Amino acid sequence: MTNPEFKFSVSATDGAARRGTLKTGHGDIRTPAFMPVGTAATVKGMTPEAVRETGADILLGNTYHLMLRPGADRVQRLGGLHKFMNWERPILTDSGGFQVMSLNELRKIDENGVTFKSHIDGKRFELTPERSMEIQNQLDATITMAFDECTPFPADADLAATSMRRSMRWAKRSRDAFEVRKGYGLFGIVQGSIYEDLRLESVGDLTGIGFDGYAVGGLAVGEGQEEMFRTLEFTSPALPNDKPRYLMGVGKPDDLVGAVMRGIDMFDCVLPTRSGRNAQAFTRFGTVNMRNARHADDSRPLDDLCGCPACRNYCRGYLHHLVRAKEILGSVLLTWHNLHYYQELMAGMRSAIEQQRLADFALHFFARREEGDIDPA
Amino acid sequence: MTNPEFKFSVSATDGAARRGTLKTGHGDIRTPAFMPVGTAATVKGMTPEAVRETGADILLGNTYHLMLRPGADRVQRLGGLHKFMNWERPILTDSGGFQVMSLNELRKIDENGVTFKSHIDGKRFELTPERSMEIQNQLDATITMAFDECTPFPADADLAATSMRRSMRWAKRSRDAFEVRKGYGLFGIVQGSIYEDLRLESVGDLTGIGFDGYAVGGLAVGEGQEEMFRTLEFTSPALPNDKPRYLMGVGKPDDLVGAVMRGIDMFDCVLPTRSGRNAQAFTRFGTVNMRNARHADDSRPLDDLCGCPACRNYCRGYLHHLVRAKEILGSVLLTWHNLHYYQELMAGMRSAIEQQRLADFALHFFARREEGDIDPA
Repeated sequence: MTNPEFKFSVSATDGAARRGTLKTGHGDIRTPAFMPVGTAATVKGMTPEAVRETGADILLGNTYHLMLRPGADRVQRLGGLHKFMNWERPILTDSGGFQVMSLNELRKIDENGVTFKSHIDGKRFELTPERSMEIQNQLDATITMAFDECTPFPADADLAATSMRRSMRWAKRSRDAFEVRKGYGLFGIVQGSIYEDLRLESVGDLTGIGFDGYAVGGLAVGEGQEEMFRTLEFTSPALPNDKPRYLMGVGKPDDLVGAVMRGIDMFDCVLPTRSGRNAQAFTRFGTVNMRNARHADDSRPLDDLCGCPACRNYCRGYLHHLVRAKEILGSVLLTWHNLHYYQELMAGMRSAIEQQRLADFALHFFARREEGDIDPA
Repeated sequence: MTNPEFKFSVSATDGAARRGTLKTGHGDIRTPAFMPVGTAATVKGMTPEAVRETGADILLGNTYHLMLRPGADRVQRLGGLHKFMNWERPILTDSGGFQVMSLNELRKIDENGVTFKSHIDGKRFELTPERSMEIQNQLDATITMAFDECTPFPADADLAATSMRRSMRWAKRSRDAFEVRKGYGLFGIVQGSIYEDLRLESVGDLTGIGFDGYAVGGLAVGEGQEEMFRTLEFTSPALPNDKPRYLMGVGKPDDLVGAVMRGIDMFDCVLPTRSGRNAQAFTRFGTVNMRNARHADDSRPLDDLCGCPACRNYCRGYLHHLVRAKEILGSVLLTWHNLHYYQELMAGMRSAIEQQRLADFALHFFARREEGDIDPA
């Protein structure tokens, strides 16, 4: 089961936090890593060159969206997702399970999988562990995610157990259906809601099957940061030390800092990109809303220490103008800034772990947010 | 009246066509030149770095849009339009006259100028020759356009004469109000609809006043290409040889070729940018509609000889996908391609004029369009 060209190594630790490298057939991923979301084969508003400039090593693609449009078979015919979207570096695809369940109301779920209708053309689709593996293979995902059910929140222990155990059966079917290729990997997904016994049972099942990495799923679904961190505190240490740990769909900058300190290596979230299109900028001091009228005559950059094009080349007054005028460049520049900020945050944590000063880094991170020039939400 | 740091020189001619350089305080403009339109202080969908990469020497900004939002005084406070939008090269601004008359229905025009209400906040504005000069000065336009009335089409000779003569009085007021600064220039605008005697009268009036360049206005308003070319054939030779000639709001690629052959040096048009956002790509062979389903499985580039990022890095199937999924990157890449195509066309004409083979260039240009892989409109 071990894949020689898909290998995770940890070069430094600081408490539970790890500084690592995930080697893949499409290149190395420096961890802790943040993966920008490229839902429909594009990180919205960004060229791949710009995404790379922000420091991203890996992107995430959404199986659900891609299977509906343009279609996984079409992506395969056109050379796979890397070539299709001009991103030769690693790509992780989700299994489609979470999104079909959260975005599609015309779905039916049973032990075999999910059937649903496309919101685009009404066409009927099926997602099962086997089909999900096939689609992710057609997409040419560097990292394939096992097909699972994201347990809703809140869920009582019985519901959480039933849901998690189905996901574990699906994990086994995913593993069996996954076509092992050099340089490619398959991640299992831990479920079990906020229940320690269920999370540990899930970890046991998955490690028994054996995966190239382990994701923590079913979090960031409304349980709150405190509950999420508590769950990570008993889940993360149970996971194998020699495999990467990926916290799915997370999160806000402070979520990332807290989760890295709890042993997480990989993240994905739409927040920096979606917020960028919605005039929200993440900064060292917290969130700035560029739509706010107070920025209209401001000749200062968004953040004078930030090296992104939005901060290097423009004043707040200009960014505010672009937002108000609904100009594409406003979305582009704020997305760029946010991704730059996220990647710089990850780079800062990687460096802090190497120097065994992550606690200090976190202290300063949270202190700066108390003194900030921010816009209240 | 002569401005030593704002100077036009012609280095080669080929028939009526001229290969020239317009030196300005913000840099040189190679002519014949196409000016991308940056209506609201941004070329829609493009960073200024990307615009420059396509080969543009100069942008156009719209006084009407900028005075309403963010406001000319605000642009001035924030350092002028060049700094505001991070484009240190030349910028030409229109006078606001054409746009207030074509875009604003709440306007009143008299001998003094135009009063109108903002469509954004209902605020009352006035545009007169004096006010237009003041605003363009606040914007820090490298090239300021005289305030004129764009004569509607069709217009009988009486209406065209009345309208043109008012524009000539406004041209004199514009000249008087224009603050002469080193490196900055003021262009007059020839009116007179399609009437030779009126056009020549207008040229006489303007050259009597004296401008740093001469625009041909009131064309591309529905008269058709043949009538436009006919009007250029008697207007263009009447203009001074030592000043640039600018055909406003034009046009399609074949308009540009025909107008350069009739002695025009500068152009602006929203066509490449607007079409790019609307899935239309200009190519050597004509117009390709990337929304067309026939492109969905096409692994070929949009144009295999084009060096723009859209053609270098992506297949037609991907561009089609972006258009269908309404992704920002679709607008970005197709705008980039179109501006690249336009600038390459201008560069081709400049080189052809230098080599005295513009007729041959035009012959090939039109021949290629007969054999093309295009989408019918």
